[in-house]
Amino acid sequence: MANSPSGDSVTDRLVRVLETFTPTRTAQTAAEIGRRAGLPNSTAHRIVGELVAAGLLERDDAGRVRVGMRLWELATRSSPALRLRQAALPFMERVQQRVREHTQLAILEQDEALFLERLSGTESGANVTRVAGRLPLHASSSGLVLLAFADRELQERVLDGPLAPLTGDTITDPRTLRRKLDEVRTLGHAIAPGSMEEVSTGVAVPLRDATGAVIAALSVVLPREAPTEPALLELYRAARDIERALSPHAG
Amino acid sequence: MANSPSGDSVTDRLVRVLETFTPTRTAQTAAEIGRRAGLPNSTAHRIVGELVAAGLLERDDAGRVRVGMRLWELATRSSPALRLRQAALPFMERVQQRVREHTQLAILEQDEALFLERLSGTESGANVTRVAGRLPLHASSSGLVLLAFADRELQERVLDGPLAPLTGDTITDPRTLRRKLDEVRTLGHAIAPGSMEEVSTGVAVPLRDATGAVIAALSVVLPREAPTEPALLELYRAARDIERALSPHAG
Repeated sequence: MANSPSGDSVTDRLVRVLETFTPTRTAQTAAEIGRRAGLPNSTAHRIVGELVAAGLLERDDAGRVRVGMRLWELATRSSPALRLRQAALPFMERVQQRVREHTQLAILEQDEALFLERLSGTESGANVTRVAGRLPLHASSSGLVLLAFADRELQERVLDGPLAPLTGDTITDPRTLRRKLDEVRTLGHAIAPGSMEEVSTGVAVPLRDATGAVIAALSVVLPREAPTEPALLELYRAARDIERALSPHAG
Repeated sequence: MANSPSGDSVTDRLVRVLETFTPTRTAQTAAEIGRRAGLPNSTAHRIVGELVAAGLLERDDAGRVRVGMRLWELATRSSPALRLRQAALPFMERVQQRVREHTQLAILEQDEALFLERLSGTESGANVTRVAGRLPLHASSSGLVLLAFADRELQERVLDGPLAPLTGDTITDPRTLRRKLDEVRTLGHAIAPGSMEEVSTGVAVPLRDATGAVIAALSVVLPREAPTEPALLELYRAARDIERALSPHAG
């Protein structure tokens, strides 16, 4: 495939265009995209034009472009994210109904916790998590579960830091984090009081595949001082049922 | 951007590669992708290699590739589909809990009903709908709502046929469909007994934006002979609450 003078492939440049769209930046002009993607203006206009023609981006009335429904459809319909999420959803709903707080599903992706789903009742409290959003491994309860059961190489890379503080309670000391990961492996779950947001405590359990490997984390976000046991009980029950639904022998 | 001898852009070829993945075909070899996308084998291998390098596709142990989590993330995190779905989800859950049947959200996309969400209890019955899957406008209750309130040009194109029968009860006669669409506009909702599957009845109501334009359909799939009124009541209540949540003045 044709490469630009700088040696990046057309695919790379398409990815750079798509990466300029974020949960809080959903509409942009081609010129803004070019500037944010580090592409010459003419290149940005040409790529955006092709993506619009293919239906992957859509133009709005103000001349800006957004991610198109067609791109969402193509990326979702055959995605492993969808299979995991569909298996988990009925049991996540049960957790949400009983605990009545945000209920979330995350996987490990490029050294961060990537959230596949978030269920929130109309009465749930504050929550920084977004669907298709990410949180750092050392600060979120989901991230601590994913990190504790990840391969040693990733653990050492994260422990090498930097461990950015999100609140005054985020673990930023590598020795403390190492002890915390050991605690998570021993308990089988993670409790993270105030490390993402001062006002809340994250509680997460692992989801395992048929080989016992951890493939995801299931979590709830509780008010900071709420008891964690009732939520943990529901999370463990849901994890067991989701693992059964995912098993190759499931009806 | 560089075009192939046949004049299609690199973007077109990327889209053709992505289009070979479907809900039931989630893993393929590069050679299979090339054949299904109508691309020379060497071109398919090169594009697949670039997409894997960019993280948009992922290679599995068997040498096949799947849609990557990164592509799902990029396509989802800023998508209008996500905003609509997140606003609708708590109220769809309420419908699902009360009606205890599949609860779905669909939009009009390229002359079909594209499903953004489907909630199913563990006890729900048969259902052909998939998230990021499509159903024909003339056969599904969601499709009938979307078509009834679509612009006349689309209505005439669909009425011009062909109107494929999915069951013995699918409307395949243009005059009958025209009367049905008029009925949907008069009632404000669609009831479609047996037209997608013999054993079930679809019930759908429209979702409107602040200008009154129909932007989506909210539906449930009931057993064929079940009463539709209780489900309709819940759907209308949910539609009202979702419209309020989507309104620019919503807290």
